[in-house]
Amino acid sequence: MDAASTATGAGAGTATGTGTAPTLEDVARAAGVSRATVSRVVNGVRNVDPAIQQAVQRAVAATGYVPNRAARSLVTRRSGAVALVVSGAGADTGRVFQDPFFGRVVSGVVRALRPRGVHPVLLFADGEADRAQVVAYLTQGGGDGALLVTTDGRDPLPGMLARAGLPAVLFARPAPGVPLDWVDLRHREGGALAARHLLARGCRRLAAIGGPADVPASRDRVAGFRDELAGTAVRVAEADFTLDGGEQAMRALLAEHPDLDGVFAANDLMAQGACLVLREHGRRIPEDVAVVGFDDSGAAVAARPRLTTVRQPVEEMAAEMVRLLLDRVAGTAPTDPAAVLFDPELVVRDSA
Amino acid sequence: MDAASTATGAGAGTATGTGTAPTLEDVARAAGVSRATVSRVVNGVRNVDPAIQQAVQRAVAATGYVPNRAARSLVTRRSGAVALVVSGAGADTGRVFQDPFFGRVVSGVVRALRPRGVHPVLLFADGEADRAQVVAYLTQGGGDGALLVTTDGRDPLPGMLARAGLPAVLFARPAPGVPLDWVDLRHREGGALAARHLLARGCRRLAAIGGPADVPASRDRVAGFRDELAGTAVRVAEADFTLDGGEQAMRALLAEHPDLDGVFAANDLMAQGACLVLREHGRRIPEDVAVVGFDDSGAAVAARPRLTTVRQPVEEMAAEMVRLLLDRVAGTAPTDPAAVLFDPELVVRDSA
Repeated sequence: MDAASTATGAGAGTATGTGTAPTLEDVARAAGVSRATVSRVVNGVRNVDPAIQQAVQRAVAATGYVPNRAARSLVTRRSGAVALVVSGAGADTGRVFQDPFFGRVVSGVVRALRPRGVHPVLLFADGEADRAQVVAYLTQGGGDGALLVTTDGRDPLPGMLARAGLPAVLFARPAPGVPLDWVDLRHREGGALAARHLLARGCRRLAAIGGPADVPASRDRVAGFRDELAGTAVRVAEADFTLDGGEQAMRALLAEHPDLDGVFAANDLMAQGACLVLREHGRRIPEDVAVVGFDDSGAAVAARPRLTTVRQPVEEMAAEMVRLLLDRVAGTAPTDPAAVLFDPELVVRDSA
Repeated sequence: MDAASTATGAGAGTATGTGTAPTLEDVARAAGVSRATVSRVVNGVRNVDPAIQQAVQRAVAATGYVPNRAARSLVTRRSGAVALVVSGAGADTGRVFQDPFFGRVVSGVVRALRPRGVHPVLLFADGEADRAQVVAYLTQGGGDGALLVTTDGRDPLPGMLARAGLPAVLFARPAPGVPLDWVDLRHREGGALAARHLLARGCRRLAAIGGPADVPASRDRVAGFRDELAGTAVRVAEADFTLDGGEQAMRALLAEHPDLDGVFAANDLMAQGACLVLREHGRRIPEDVAVVGFDDSGAAVAARPRLTTVRQPVEEMAAEMVRLLLDRVAGTAPTDPAAVLFDPELVVRDSA
C-alpha cells in the first residue's frame, strides 16, 4: 500500500453555516413559547400539547437549531444508542463477523431500531478485560442497554450485566439465576422436525453433525433429533459450525458408516461441507444420502443441491430482542424477566 | 412464537453498590489533588504529570468512581464512538449485512478501534431521510466522525458529510470535488492480474462477469481485465455481485460461447455461481474452463473447486480507514484529504 494526496486540494470540509449556531432561545422566540417548553419538546418529554410540539418542531427546522446529544443525555439520561454485544470465550472477530448468522442479527436489529431513531453500538468481548469494558461503557451511559449474542453457554457477561442492573436482552436462554430477558428458538423441536422429515423419506441409517458441545443450542438440536429417533442408533460427529468442520465430520462418519442414508447437520455451513464430501465420494444427494441443515442462512441456497433446512427466524428474533430491550429501558416492562420462544420451520429444497 | 415468564423470578437486576455513588470530590480526596486535576485526568486532557495521572487513576479504581460519558462529552466534545455507515441507493439491509464483504469491514474496524476504547455505531442509509439522519446524528455529537461504505458511485452522502465539515473516510474514491479521505484498492491492477494468470494458463477464449455498472470498483476490475487482453475479444455479462446473478450470467455466456475456456468474475460470489453452472454443463474446472474470482472472501474457500481469486485486503483497508479518521478527529491530519491505495494480490487455488 502507499499514500498519496488527492488532487482535490480543498480542505477536509467546511461547515455550511456562517455566524453563530442558533440557540434554544432562538427557537423559543421563533415558536413564541418559553425556553423551558422548547427544552421539553426537544428532549422528548411527554404531555406537551401536540400543537405546541408542532410549532416548536417547525421553529427548530426554520432556525437550523441542533440539540447537543451529550447535553440532552444529561437531561434525559438516554443516549439514543443500544449496545449490540458479541461475546464468548475464544470468539474470533474474523470468523464471527463473517458468519451469515451475525449478518442476520445485525439486519434484524437495524431494521427494528431505525424507525425509533436509535442506533446499535457494536461491542465485541472475548476476554475478561473486554467484558469489564462493556459493563463500564454501559454504566457510563454509552448505551441505554445491551443486546447480547454469546457463543458460549458459560459466558460470565450476562451475569455481570444483571448484577450491574443494566437492561439487557440475550439471544439464547441465560444460565439459571441470571434474571435477564431473552429470546430463543425451540431448538429441540427443530431437531425433531429434521428427524421426522428424514424418516418420512425412508432414511433408516442416520447420522448427525453437531456443533460445539458448549453451545446449548447446538446440544439441543442434536438431542431433539435423537429423541425423535428413539430406538434407532444415531452416529454423531462433533464439529465447530464451520464448512471445514462439516467436511471433516462427514469424512469421519462415512469412513465408519459407508452405508448411511441420512444426515442432519446442526447448521447450514456444516451441511454444505457434508454435501461437498458426499459428492466427492460419489453419493447422489438426496437419492443416496439425504441431508438436512439448520438455520436457513445464505449458505442453504448457495449449496448444491440447495439445502432442505430447519429455519431459525434470526431477523425476527433480533427484532423481538429490540422490542424487549426498549420496553426495559423505558421502564414499561414487567419486573420478571420475559422469555420469547420462536418455533422452527422445515424448509424443503433439494437436499432431502 | 409465544411469550412466557421465566421461572427465575428475581427482578431485572439490582445494582451492586449500596449508598450513594462516589463523586469527583471523593476521588480528589483519595488522590490528594484538586477537583480540577481529577477532571483533567478523567477527561484525558494532556500535559498532566504522569505521577499525578497514576495517583488519580488509582483513586478512581479505589473509589469506584464512574465518570458520566455524557458529562465528559460536553467537556471533551468527543463521544468515544465513530459511525460506521453503510449507504447506497437501493441497498437492502438483509443482503448487505449478509455479504461476506460487510463482515470483513466490521472485523477490521472493530479490531482497529478496540485498543483505543472507541466503538463503532452502525448506521444504515438507503434514502434521503436516512442520509439527513446520519448527518444530524454526527452533528449532534453521536459519533466523532464517519467510516462510510457506499455501494453506489452517485451516493450524495459523502458530499453531505464534507459540506457539513464532519470528519469522514470513505471506502472507495469519492466523486470529484468531494474533499474526504479515502482508501481503495487498485482495482484495474486486480483485473489485469486475473487476465495475465488466465493467459499464462493458455486460455484464449475469455469472458468476464462484471458487477453493477454503477459501482466504480466493479467497472475498474473489468476494464483492467480487458485492457490486459487488448486485441482479444472479451465477452462481458453484467450481474449484481450475487451468487444467483453469477449463475445467470454464466448461463448466458455459455449459451452464446459454448467454447469459452476462461472466466473472470468481479467478485467471489459470482465466480462461485459461475462454477456451479459450468459443472452443471459438464465442464471440468480448471481443465475445460478456468475461473478467477475477486475479493478472497469466505465464498472463495467455500466454493468447489476452491477459487483462484484476486485478494482485496478488506480488513486492512478498514483498519486504515480507522487510522485516517482518528487522525482527522484528533486534528493531526494534514489539511488536504489523504488517499491510501492498496495493491491486489493473486491467490492461486484450484479453479484456475
